[in-house]
Amino acid sequence: MPKPLRIAIAGALGRMGRQMVETVAADPRLELAARFHRSGSAGEGLVDRDEALALADVIVDFTTPAASAELAAACAVRGGPALVIGSTGFDAAELAAIAAAAKTVAIVRSGSYSLGLNVLTGLVEQAARALGPGDCDIEIFEAHHRAKVDAPSGTALMLGEAAAQGRGIALEDVARRGRDGVTGPCPPGEIGFAVMRGGSIVGEHSVNFLADGEVLTLSHSAGDRSMFARGAIAAALWVAEKPPGEYDMRDVLRR
Amino acid sequence: MPKPLRIAIAGALGRMGRQMVETVAADPRLELAARFHRSGSAGEGLVDRDEALALADVIVDFTTPAASAELAAACAVRGGPALVIGSTGFDAAELAAIAAAAKTVAIVRSGSYSLGLNVLTGLVEQAARALGPGDCDIEIFEAHHRAKVDAPSGTALMLGEAAAQGRGIALEDVARRGRDGVTGPCPPGEIGFAVMRGGSIVGEHSVNFLADGEVLTLSHSAGDRSMFARGAIAAALWVAEKPPGEYDMRDVLRR
Amino acid sequence: MPKPLRIAIAGALGRMGRQMVETVAADPRLELAARFHRSGSAGEGLVDRDEALALADVIVDFTTPAASAELAAACAVRGGPALVIGSTGFDAAELAAIAAAAKTVAIVRSGSYSLGLNVLTGLVEQAARALGPGDCDIEIFEAHHRAKVDAPSGTALMLGEAAAQGRGIALEDVARRGRDGVTGPCPPGEIGFAVMRGGSIVGEHSVNFLADGEVLTLSHSAGDRSMFARGAIAAALWVAEKPPGEYDMRDVLRR
Amino acid sequence: MPKPLRIAIAGALGRMGRQMVETVAADPRLELAARFHRSGSAGEGLVDRDEALALADVIVDFTTPAASAELAAACAVRGGPALVIGSTGFDAAELAAIAAAAKTVAIVRSGSYSLGLNVLTGLVEQAARALGPGDCDIEIFEAHHRAKVDAPSGTALMLGEAAAQGRGIALEDVARRGRDGVTGPCPPGEIGFAVMRGGSIVGEHSVNFLADGEVLTLSHSAGDRSMFARGAIAAALWVAEKPPGEYDMRDVLRR
Repeated sequence: MPKPLRIAIAGALGRMGRQMVETVAADPRLELAARFHRSGSAGEGLVDRDEALALADVIVDFTTPAASAELAAACAVRGGPALVIGSTGFDAAELAAIAAAAKTVAIVRSGSYSLGLNVLTGLVEQAARALGPGDCDIEIFEAHHRAKVDAPSGTALMLGEAAAQGRGIALEDVARRGRDGVTGPCPPGEIGFAVMRGGSIVGEHSVNFLADGEVLTLSHSAGDRSMFARGAIAAALWVAEKPPGEYDMRDVLRR
Repeated sequence: MPKPLRIAIAGALGRMGRQMVETVAADPRLELAARFHRSGSAGEGLVDRDEALALADVIVDFTTPAASAELAAACAVRGGPALVIGSTGFDAAELAAIAAAAKTVAIVRSGSYSLGLNVLTGLVEQAARALGPGDCDIEIFEAHHRAKVDAPSGTALMLGEAAAQGRGIALEDVARRGRDGVTGPCPPGEIGFAVMRGGSIVGEHSVNFLADGEVLTLSHSAGDRSMFARGAIAAALWVAEKPPGEYDMRDVLRR
Repeated sequence: MPKPLRIAIAGALGRMGRQMVETVAADPRLELAARFHRSGSAGEGLVDRDEALALADVIVDFTTPAASAELAAACAVRGGPALVIGSTGFDAAELAAIAAAAKTVAIVRSGSYSLGLNVLTGLVEQAARALGPGDCDIEIFEAHHRAKVDAPSGTALMLGEAAAQGRGIALEDVARRGRDGVTGPCPPGEIGFAVMRGGSIVGEHSVNFLADGEVLTLSHSAGDRSMFARGAIAAALWVAEKPPGEYDMRDVLRR
Repeated sequence: MPKPLRIAIAGALGRMGRQMVETVAADPRLELAARFHRSGSAGEGLVDRDEALALADVIVDFTTPAASAELAAACAVRGGPALVIGSTGFDAAELAAIAAAAKTVAIVRSGSYSLGLNVLTGLVEQAARALGPGDCDIEIFEAHHRAKVDAPSGTALMLGEAAAQGRGIALEDVARRGRDGVTGPCPPGEIGFAVMRGGSIVGEHSVNFLADGEVLTLSHSAGDRSMFARGAIAAALWVAEKPPGEYDMRDVLRR
């Protein structure tokens, strides 16, 4: 059996950090080498960042854009370890810092570590390329729990972007949201969104390719948060072997 | 084997009339006794209305409100036959004429002869009564072909009415249509509608009861127009045995 | 605001017991009056059974058939409190003991406290009554996680029983399980079962009424174990007001 | 507007032949140049095979393996027209005859001309490659009308082959059909099949990738036979421009 990969968890006291700790601890391919949180945090077994960097092969980081950018720079200065970044909402300066660090260390960065959603996004783009606006209409459905305050979900819009990209058009030119009242018939090429809210649904998404006499549906159902941790681990195992560079989950899944 | 029930088809040249002719002809419990259309229509094998009334045990009528009201009156004058009416969009005078006729002959009248949709409507009302706004959210989803010009569908709204009735509230007070943008969390008791359009979908409807940790879904999928003809035949077989009165499909299904 | 209902949890260290403790603690209508486990159990805050009986308006009990039967007898001797029993697998003597106790105290006993599954079971029976074997075929689909060792699930069989009861037949006379190979066409009245296994699915069930040209589907999706706790709480709130007798979740939902 | 493509329909009196005639007649990009059937067939407007070959740019052929092989040879002798073959069940000699003809004329041959099912098959293979047996279980569900006599459907098995190919294994080594009774937990890598039968369902297929905490589902729903005709037309328009060779629908969709 190979030596387990040594993982350090950044933001170890956050919601995703705690989930990562639990998932890493349960995986025999991995060793939980260190846990750290923003400087000044108190918690049993926490170490400071520089100690964590010295102990790990890969850092998994679900924190904030600023903290992730700084962490990437710190890894680059030391010449490692590799990084898996799950923070979202970066500004241009933060993205530039990460890109600079990626010249020296291998970094995976993704807006979603769900294996299923990343695979789905790639399949949607291909299906939209194969099935043009003359063949079928595209409609995206999503459902989330009752407390979600925006619609459609960010993931639904991301899937819409993938469909539009497959057809070589811009989503904003063809999106049709919130159909209600006298809508008229659907013009060819429109990409519609339908939204359901209620209960405690974690997240349901489907992309429907509706042709004459047949429907192709590509869908994803999220059961719980652990799926993101498993995706981050897949990324960590993958990136540990890679040369410096900035990667995303599509690269990981192309393995 | 009992003698087949003699059916006459009104509006025999219309889309539903032709479907009825085909479905009656294929059913060994029935005899296609006569076909008629509005006076002056030419077509092989058509008879005039009074002749049809003399030949049939039950008339199945998918025509227009005015024609149906007049037909009901004609049946009442003769003391039969019984009637199954599938026309929609009656005004008050036409409804009164039918109610008057129903003192002498047995009449089934329904906005939809789909067995499945009628059963569904009853189940939705009951489920909404059992699962109150403190237990779960209600969301209705529907999908239709790309040429449909209005949203939500009439059937979706009918299902929403059934849910609201089960909860003892008015649909217009709780309906939420076309969610888009910053919608905020769902207030308890809201009944939402989500709409999909595309391809050649005949009609999909689902009513979703979304609770914490579980979802109950009651749904219907229409494949083709023949289902309405089969429901009308079920109504014809039922009404043939009934005393004068005005009935609907809920009565037929209570058999 | 009314005084909260005082709940004691039997089997408080078991999986459902712990879930009940958590759910009761979070519900402002309830007070967690006592927790107990089988005699000799050690745990912070546990009391003994007789103390728990003195402190509570209702006992919620997910333990074993023998323990539940004994607990019911103990409640009857004292003239209360009321009981909500979630244990399963009773033998005849245990059932008789519970029935005897129910002459003195109010008892709800159910094989499943999911509100949704109980509502579903009632709806399936009615739909099967309305849609006879000449109208449509009935097929039951279920999916569970990869570790489940039997098929079809107990809940799927319970839904099949409800469908058979609606049609006035015995399930074992019409059940068709594990279709594979040259199966021949479906005889009218058959009730088929289709089974999926994989991943971490908590439980999906659907009962499909398949007619010519239309399908009615009644389905349930379980997200997590909390739904059973919520159902038991609904039963506790209901039974607290009831005269002695043995009830099930169908009675609770008829409120 | 370009000159319409001239199509001849082989087997014009068969079920798919009649569907092709109807669909070609309704498509402005096409001209129905000739209809023929096996020699000796009588029907208004039928021509003989050699006349049809002279009048058409592409022949669409849903007949029998023997007739298709002979037709391919006849096209090759004349140096055209191109061929779209939808017959199934070829033996080795017939396949060799078609391969020989494809040195001279362009031929598309496919077991299914549904655009959606062909796209689905490609997507399933890719998803199975990206999501290995350590990531998720694969389960295939299919539903068909009550008269279908075999299970699982040929299309379900084809989708299973695609999934197995994506994982680099043989389907027969991992297929699990007709789960019933004490099945035990699922071993990693198993590909299960679940079957539903009833009503008039044309064909539903789904391939489910079941991981911990998430499910990816790729599914197809067939509404009516016209979809096969539309796929054959897409193939005809594509093959008209191609050099000699034997192609399948995957090539057509790669356009």
